[in-house]
Amino acid sequence: MQKIRLTAKGRRWRRTGHPWIYRNDLLPGQTAVSGEVVAVYDAQERFLGQALYSAVSRIALRLLTVDDIPINADFWEARLHQALAYRRRVVTNSNACRLIYAEADGFPGLILDNYDGHLVFQIHHPGMARLLPQLIDLLQPLLRPQSITLRNDSEVRRLEGLPLEIEVIRGELPERLLVQEGTVQFWVDVRGGQKTGLFLDQRENRLAAAAWAQGEVLDCFSYQGGFALHVASHAQHVVAVESSALSLGLAQDNARLNRMHNVDWIQANCFDFLKKAHASSKFYDLIILDPPAFAKSRADQPAAFRGYQDLNRRALQLLKPGGIFITCSCSYNLSQETFLGLLRQAAQDARRQVQVIECRGAAKDHPTLLALPESTYLKCFVCRAL
Amino acid sequence: MQKIRLTAKGRRWRRTGHPWIYRNDLLPGQTAVSGEVVAVYDAQERFLGQALYSAVSRIALRLLTVDDIPINADFWEARLHQALAYRRRVVTNSNACRLIYAEADGFPGLILDNYDGHLVFQIHHPGMARLLPQLIDLLQPLLRPQSITLRNDSEVRRLEGLPLEIEVIRGELPERLLVQEGTVQFWVDVRGGQKTGLFLDQRENRLAAAAWAQGEVLDCFSYQGGFALHVASHAQHVVAVESSALSLGLAQDNARLNRMHNVDWIQANCFDFLKKAHASSKFYDLIILDPPAFAKSRADQPAAFRGYQDLNRRALQLLKPGGIFITCSCSYNLSQETFLGLLRQAAQDARRQVQVIECRGAAKDHPTLLALPESTYLKCFVCRAL
Repeated sequence: MQKIRLTAKGRRWRRTGHPWIYRNDLLPGQTAVSGEVVAVYDAQERFLGQALYSAVSRIALRLLTVDDIPINADFWEARLHQALAYRRRVVTNSNACRLIYAEADGFPGLILDNYDGHLVFQIHHPGMARLLPQLIDLLQPLLRPQSITLRNDSEVRRLEGLPLEIEVIRGELPERLLVQEGTVQFWVDVRGGQKTGLFLDQRENRLAAAAWAQGEVLDCFSYQGGFALHVASHAQHVVAVESSALSLGLAQDNARLNRMHNVDWIQANCFDFLKKAHASSKFYDLIILDPPAFAKSRADQPAAFRGYQDLNRRALQLLKPGGIFITCSCSYNLSQETFLGLLRQAAQDARRQVQVIECRGAAKDHPTLLALPESTYLKCFVCRAL
Repeated sequence: MQKIRLTAKGRRWRRTGHPWIYRNDLLPGQTAVSGEVVAVYDAQERFLGQALYSAVSRIALRLLTVDDIPINADFWEARLHQALAYRRRVVTNSNACRLIYAEADGFPGLILDNYDGHLVFQIHHPGMARLLPQLIDLLQPLLRPQSITLRNDSEVRRLEGLPLEIEVIRGELPERLLVQEGTVQFWVDVRGGQKTGLFLDQRENRLAAAAWAQGEVLDCFSYQGGFALHVASHAQHVVAVESSALSLGLAQDNARLNRMHNVDWIQANCFDFLKKAHASSKFYDLIILDPPAFAKSRADQPAAFRGYQDLNRRALQLLKPGGIFITCSCSYNLSQETFLGLLRQAAQDARRQVQVIECRGAAKDHPTLLALPESTYLKCFVCRAL
């Protein structure tokens, strides 16, 4: 196996446990084939582990193991079994979930989602592209999938020089799938929907929101109605706001499917909607704010932070006394501390005392890796405005 | 009402929304009677709110409201009703809970816990000591308490010049009370137990731990067996370690009460126990680590942080592959970020890849105030060691 040696700085970085090693932490003049497993050493020829190599990305190495063991079919089978056994344990209320979550499950750059027997891969590393046929052979007898789709259309593939494509590689994938999440059914468009069709990471937060629903509810950035439909059966009336006509159409189909008739679906920009609602003195018992990632890069941060703060302030102004506020951010450039700081300022500007009741994250089938802070992105606070 | 005017710096601090104002942010030469409500103004005579005054503490003012409204029986009754209505909503699985949580419920320095009809106050501010008779009159018809006890033995009372005392002021308080938490019953010693008898803040975490229990479980710092008894009915075998013979005696009584025969109660220092377990290659499916606050002051921090890191490393070493780790810290001097950093280093030292599955805090009847970061102290991570 090819050896890659690290600089002294690279060795120190490795000691932090972070599974990514950047190219400038490699001793110069070394290269390997993208996607190959390489042995990692320090400059003094001490073994540090085994990693997937990339010849293109700034992240040259993604660690697979610190042990000197064969990386073969048995190695991957054991990891696959661990990942699947864990999901059987934690996903009990849905037939749609994430089965493999990249680094956190020991498959750097590979995501596998299951929509009631229809599997969807996202491959973000050439090493995982190589592994794919072998992994499918391992999966076949375990899951007997109805279809397998590659949703390889994420921009992050460009960083590895991989082409963007969507392809059904096994079986038949219907236009739309029906999945069950708690008491709610959703139509899922695996080919064209956001991510792989549903925001699976918010599943437990959607289920948790239902417990807070009563009276008048406002769901901002409703997308396909995920939160709105979960709270509708516990609320008198729900207003769901979404700017995309396409998403709103799917949300309305979902509402018909679940026979939910107490939701008003409003196509609008959420900032504008909140402003108007404030002007007309509307108040709500529960407000849900689940905006898209505003801070996609560090350069976006100042504007994104202002956007989050403005949204949260406007939402807080619309809460009845004792009203519940479920506020999310999926920007990984916005830390939990910073998000709390924004909320604090928003509460002060709205002149509301705000309790934080619960601090939540992604659903349990989306574990984050302690050593990879980049894998923690979804923050969800349940608050109460006095 | 007496006026207290702030410096320009005090006014800026007030704008952050933090409800405490320190004495050096008051214009000099002003004073009032400890425990009185005062009107807060800036140097330009602009009204900023109303606050409880302390003549003794470094915290001179604790904000009650930013509004210019009468602070009378109606004011307190409305706050009390809000606090009680909220607990009726969120506490459904126990007859022991916190009814009023100080600043978060708008009662600065006052805590009220309910143990199946026996009420326990902790009063940490002279303003609340004054309010107490009025509050009891308001509570009486609402809760019809069997007894009312003052657990005024916390050291923080000294900061306000208040004496330390424990007193039953109404009704009869038995030696030990029986409370129900989910499926488990506990004996509670309201007069002599830690805090007001039980660690009520960990209630939801104890209930959540049960869902992770299987096989061999280790519960460190078991105290009165709270976590151990909740996991016992789902596990094959539990080892509960606690250094205090008194706590262990109560834990064993609780075990008999709940007919739990699969728990070994071990009186030992947890550091020593973990060291020995490692030497004898014991491994567990679930480990719970709920140590007391090591970092009680800033001066304690370096030693406390080393202590936490050491404990967490030793625990991680004892987990079976895929084993679950529930790790807590109740030091408010240890931020969530710092705690995660300690865990990261502990995992690296133990050579284990660790997933963070869930980030939890205090139970919902212990809301924290967004504007008062000091009220966020309990951190609980559910992790999985690969």
